[in-house]
Amino acid sequence: MEQKNRGDFTLPGEAGYEKLTLELAKTWGADVIRDSDGTKLSDEIVQAGYGIYSTICIIRQHNEFALTHPDAQQQVFLCSDPVVATEETLRVSPLEGFFDQQFEINDTPEALAYWQVYDRTSNRLLPREQWEYAEGQVTIRGCEKWHEYTVSFLCWRIWEEINMYNHTTNNWQSEHLRQLDPRHPLAWEYLQKWLEDWCIANPDTTVVRFTSLFYNFVWIFGSDMKRRNRFTDWASYDFTVSPAALAAFQAEYGYALTAEDFIHQRKLQVTHMPPTKAKRDYMDFIQRFVAEKAKTLVEIVHRYGKKAYVFYDDSWVGLEPYGKQFATIGFDGLIKCIFSGFECRLCAGAEAPTHEIRLHPYLFPVGLGGLPTFSEGGHPEKDALAYWRSARRALARQPVDRIGLGGYLHLTEGYPAFVDAITRIGDEFRRMKALHQAGAPYTLPLRVGVLHTWGSLRSWTLSGHFHETYMHSLIHINEALSGLPVEVRFLSFEEAEQGALRDLDVVINAGRMGDAWSGGEAWRSDRLVEALTEFAYQGGVFLGVNEPSATEGYQYTFRMAPVLGIDLDRGERVCHGRWSFDLPQEQPFPVNPEALGAKDHLYLTDGKAQVLAAKDGIPQLTVHAFGQGAGVYLSDFHFTTENARMLLDILLYAAGKEKDALYLADHPSVETAYYPAQKTLLVFNNAEEKVAVKIVLPGGSLQVELAPLETRELEIEA
Amino acid sequence: MEQKNRGDFTLPGEAGYEKLTLELAKTWGADVIRDSDGTKLSDEIVQAGYGIYSTICIIRQHNEFALTHPDAQQQVFLCSDPVVATEETLRVSPLEGFFDQQFEINDTPEALAYWQVYDRTSNRLLPREQWEYAEGQVTIRGCEKWHEYTVSFLCWRIWEEINMYNHTTNNWQSEHLRQLDPRHPLAWEYLQKWLEDWCIANPDTTVVRFTSLFYNFVWIFGSDMKRRNRFTDWASYDFTVSPAALAAFQAEYGYALTAEDFIHQRKLQVTHMPPTKAKRDYMDFIQRFVAEKAKTLVEIVHRYGKKAYVFYDDSWVGLEPYGKQFATIGFDGLIKCIFSGFECRLCAGAEAPTHEIRLHPYLFPVGLGGLPTFSEGGHPEKDALAYWRSARRALARQPVDRIGLGGYLHLTEGYPAFVDAITRIGDEFRRMKALHQAGAPYTLPLRVGVLHTWGSLRSWTLSGHFHETYMHSLIHINEALSGLPVEVRFLSFEEAEQGALRDLDVVINAGRMGDAWSGGEAWRSDRLVEALTEFAYQGGVFLGVNEPSATEGYQYTFRMAPVLGIDLDRGERVCHGRWSFDLPQEQPFPVNPEALGAKDHLYLTDGKAQVLAAKDGIPQLTVHAFGQGAGVYLSDFHFTTENARMLLDILLYAAGKEKDALYLADHPSVETAYYPAQKTLLVFNNAEEKVAVKIVLPGGSLQVELAPLETRELEIEA
Repeated sequence: MEQKNRGDFTLPGEAGYEKLTLELAKTWGADVIRDSDGTKLSDEIVQAGYGIYSTICIIRQHNEFALTHPDAQQQVFLCSDPVVATEETLRVSPLEGFFDQQFEINDTPEALAYWQVYDRTSNRLLPREQWEYAEGQVTIRGCEKWHEYTVSFLCWRIWEEINMYNHTTNNWQSEHLRQLDPRHPLAWEYLQKWLEDWCIANPDTTVVRFTSLFYNFVWIFGSDMKRRNRFTDWASYDFTVSPAALAAFQAEYGYALTAEDFIHQRKLQVTHMPPTKAKRDYMDFIQRFVAEKAKTLVEIVHRYGKKAYVFYDDSWVGLEPYGKQFATIGFDGLIKCIFSGFECRLCAGAEAPTHEIRLHPYLFPVGLGGLPTFSEGGHPEKDALAYWRSARRALARQPVDRIGLGGYLHLTEGYPAFVDAITRIGDEFRRMKALHQAGAPYTLPLRVGVLHTWGSLRSWTLSGHFHETYMHSLIHINEALSGLPVEVRFLSFEEAEQGALRDLDVVINAGRMGDAWSGGEAWRSDRLVEALTEFAYQGGVFLGVNEPSATEGYQYTFRMAPVLGIDLDRGERVCHGRWSFDLPQEQPFPVNPEALGAKDHLYLTDGKAQVLAAKDGIPQLTVHAFGQGAGVYLSDFHFTTENARMLLDILLYAAGKEKDALYLADHPSVETAYYPAQKTLLVFNNAEEKVAVKIVLPGGSLQVELAPLETRELEIEA
Repeated sequence: MEQKNRGDFTLPGEAGYEKLTLELAKTWGADVIRDSDGTKLSDEIVQAGYGIYSTICIIRQHNEFALTHPDAQQQVFLCSDPVVATEETLRVSPLEGFFDQQFEINDTPEALAYWQVYDRTSNRLLPREQWEYAEGQVTIRGCEKWHEYTVSFLCWRIWEEINMYNHTTNNWQSEHLRQLDPRHPLAWEYLQKWLEDWCIANPDTTVVRFTSLFYNFVWIFGSDMKRRNRFTDWASYDFTVSPAALAAFQAEYGYALTAEDFIHQRKLQVTHMPPTKAKRDYMDFIQRFVAEKAKTLVEIVHRYGKKAYVFYDDSWVGLEPYGKQFATIGFDGLIKCIFSGFECRLCAGAEAPTHEIRLHPYLFPVGLGGLPTFSEGGHPEKDALAYWRSARRALARQPVDRIGLGGYLHLTEGYPAFVDAITRIGDEFRRMKALHQAGAPYTLPLRVGVLHTWGSLRSWTLSGHFHETYMHSLIHINEALSGLPVEVRFLSFEEAEQGALRDLDVVINAGRMGDAWSGGEAWRSDRLVEALTEFAYQGGVFLGVNEPSATEGYQYTFRMAPVLGIDLDRGERVCHGRWSFDLPQEQPFPVNPEALGAKDHLYLTDGKAQVLAAKDGIPQLTVHAFGQGAGVYLSDFHFTTENARMLLDILLYAAGKEKDALYLADHPSVETAYYPAQKTLLVFNNAEEKVAVKIVLPGGSLQVELAPLETRELEIEA
């Protein structure tokens, strides 16, 4: 592969390891050196002629201010564990079961006004007169015996969650860091001043790397080690709340939010479920607040001649790179740490001048899952190439501008294979970027729309990383799509009703009945069903995964059953005979049953669907012709690069476009990307063994043998 | 085992095989000889001094009358397969897809008045002006494009379903038999007269064996052999309908039923789902009609000095042995064909002077599942003993009065092992009956209530045989309970609210969310939740299986989660941390994971449940202390006699009554029944191999070694 081996690379430097820092900067072709959480850069590094990123967590590391202004700390609504009333009077200690180093009851009058006591058995809010609070305990009178009661209450959050995670996981011993709420006027004044001072004190910094903004994703710890993690949702907004925020919301929206809008029957409002209108309004409200405050910070940074990049993780809430406000903030760059292909696309597709991905592994003794990386038993070079396998197929479709690493650089000592792997990755990255700059890669004639509640706001991601959301079919679909030679966009149900289907060849709806990805009550819209039915009838492919278009109250569970030819029996059809079917003697494409689910209770509606895979007599993969188009059903989808190819084969088959498919390899482990402007074909071997393949070219084909995980660059004659 | 080897046995005789008939009558100790569907008795048999049962299917075998009075035939509502409107005008052939030898469109004016055209996409009934019917086709105008439309219509049923089944399954070639509706005044006159004539013509018959009454269970055939069986529900009432019935219903109840009350979004009203109020009313209405008519027939039979027994199957609908009307009919006996233990208990518990079970196998070349019985490859003696294994444990708990066989007796020739097996079964049956007559068997201190929508109306059965309902957890529970040394009753949610729990130690709720066995919306009653919570708190055991007490709209999916300590996440808790747990080092009783389900999405609510089995990290069997009692959860339950013992162990353990358990064997394949009045212990080996066991006695124990499937009788010293 032709090389352009310098630039577009951010190296984590480390004071005390100046020689190593500068050597590796050269080896890897870095143009920027950064600090990390836990490391500093020395003058020798800072003065070496590289761009310098400095990491700032703006709301953290102000313990002195926090202690003198405790009401400037961030808050959250919690709900006590429910208690069964066996007497008419019940005493509840609301904070019991929560981690007392993270939370502290807020019983100020303005907070107490938001507390609520619920009879959860009868879903009834108790009148304020029925309970009183004193010394950490709520006394509820006039209880209905055998009913369960809860107390919803406001808490101060007294330990910044990422710091708390590092302490509790990595056994850090330093002072617990607190976090300030920029909504507090004094805190906001203080933070602006602090940033100005910081800019003045750090003249060599070229880029301020915000990690990240103000509000962390929700992460609630329990007191019991058997359930330390009580709740975590990467995309939820509960940590932004305060009486001040609620009052501002009410003033603007004309209606008040209550604790129950957040507590929601103790389920909280998870991103994976369709939001209430109040939640949507509140998110919008917070996004505008965050953008406004962030813009002020960016302006300060710019005033000092520096650039402002934002790292999209941790305290990212409200930032929303796919939201309406993001571009107005004025960030010069968006940095995303990535484990997966979909995260590369997420970064690449956001509206920002510079897109940077931070590769894994992080330079740390152990990885996020607790397995060794740069320590005994670790193979960081294998990890790096495994992550690269996911990233390169995505970067081949859509480029980012830069890559980088993070952590303790000195840990790379003794891991020369890792150093080599990063050298290779850097070179391949730069070559792909150059190919993209010359012109976009070829795509198959498949314009794919992923249809769910959140639409483009949750482009590519669901709520966090793959390993946090693996139980959702859609993240597997998204990861597959991230590296396929097709166009991909994300659309909401409203957009689907309003004409967005016109520009699509395939619509995918993948989720569990009632969740945000399947869509829940959105499917009560006849207009939506009409639009998609017409779409399929006129030649589109509607692909449903798991429990697509599922809602209650209709003749089918899947509203799109007329198109899909398959439906889910929720018990009402247990006495109905099932259509028998035969699997085809010869599959139209290779089908891996492991890629699918093992779902029960599915039944063919009209017996006309082609069943391509079944488990225990139940269809798991079907294709149902409908008008000029088709409905395709997958009971589930498990991502591997090989299964991604199966997904592509399914789409091509259902759309009747198998014949149009160029540049595809005849082996599921091999993917390609063709750049017509440079007549260059990239061929990726995703397998860890040698593979020989034939690749279809216009008017011919090509044989090639690939080493394990190889990236091969081929020039293709016109 | 001591023998009393004559009587209480009904033998199927066969003309042409008089010698065999009388020989086997002697060998098996028969006191009654019967005919069967397809066999006749000759004078030689009838005159041989035995009681004689004659089988009558009262509504069948009147083709001449049916052809001259076609409007006296039975009817049903059907609903056309849905059609998507791609134009504004749509033509639907309603009968397309149905078996045209079973159905004929009823387009008489009084029938047509009940027809309905629905827009199934928007759940909208079309005004009558929008459609017209002519020559087998409905034309619908003004359709909404991309919506699906259906036509609900009345049909004549022109082929009696059991006859149709025998023709289509066993290749019968005789004339298709039609069936009359006793609601038709002329038909009813005719049938009474016919029965009188029959009684006069058959003076030797001692018992008229009605097979059965008027209305078959619902069985709808399709035109396509790939879905011949479109619908079958053994306990549904759709085949009773007619304009006359609907008019009578309206006159009595003051409101009209429509086609949609039966069609129900094309789902029909299956027994396994909670009934609408209209369905409950209609069932009650039909039960009273059936009882009234049946009573008249019984009176005719009695007038001729004969007894009237009813065979509880086929055209049984409305008979309802556990309904309010049954005892008023005056039947002298109830005969139930049985495959399983629960069916023995079903028969034994009904209010009738004589209870008789018809054993399997039926004397037929092939069995119900299509496997050979009395033909090449068949082992009817093994079948007989396998069914007996299920029956004897139930009969040991509660006796019936008689046993019998059915079918073609000559088929037993060449199967001497079968003859021996039946001899043994007859002897064991008579001995058990004698033990019961001396006094009831010992039971453990566990009074079990099975709680579901239908309550005692569906005691023991769900809807038909085990092999028709195996997909429901409850039938496995019922089958287990049928042979356990515990008291069992069936109760409705209303009864549970109204004090019925007072007499119970255990309440079982076993079903799928929303179905009749779990209970669906019945669980919206706070009174029900209170009653059961108090029941458990005061010492009761609430045992939930699969999706017990599940409904929507509350903080938990399982309303009884506070007692169970476990709940089902329907997506709303996907971000909530799970309690970790350890399985016990030593189980309190033997746990067979195969007896349970492999259910996902379960989570411990308070972390206090003892997890006794788990699959892929998800609890599948839990015991949760609650007050003085407990909640027990099983993700599913698969019946085997060994698993039945596990169920008993679970109940004893959760109730804290392990120490009280007497007469139990220390091997799961061995069950016992102790009859204190006779100081007799019956020991059953359910295994097909030899087993040596120890049995706990008051103040001691007993060792015994049992042959495969042996029934051993032991005298126990006081």
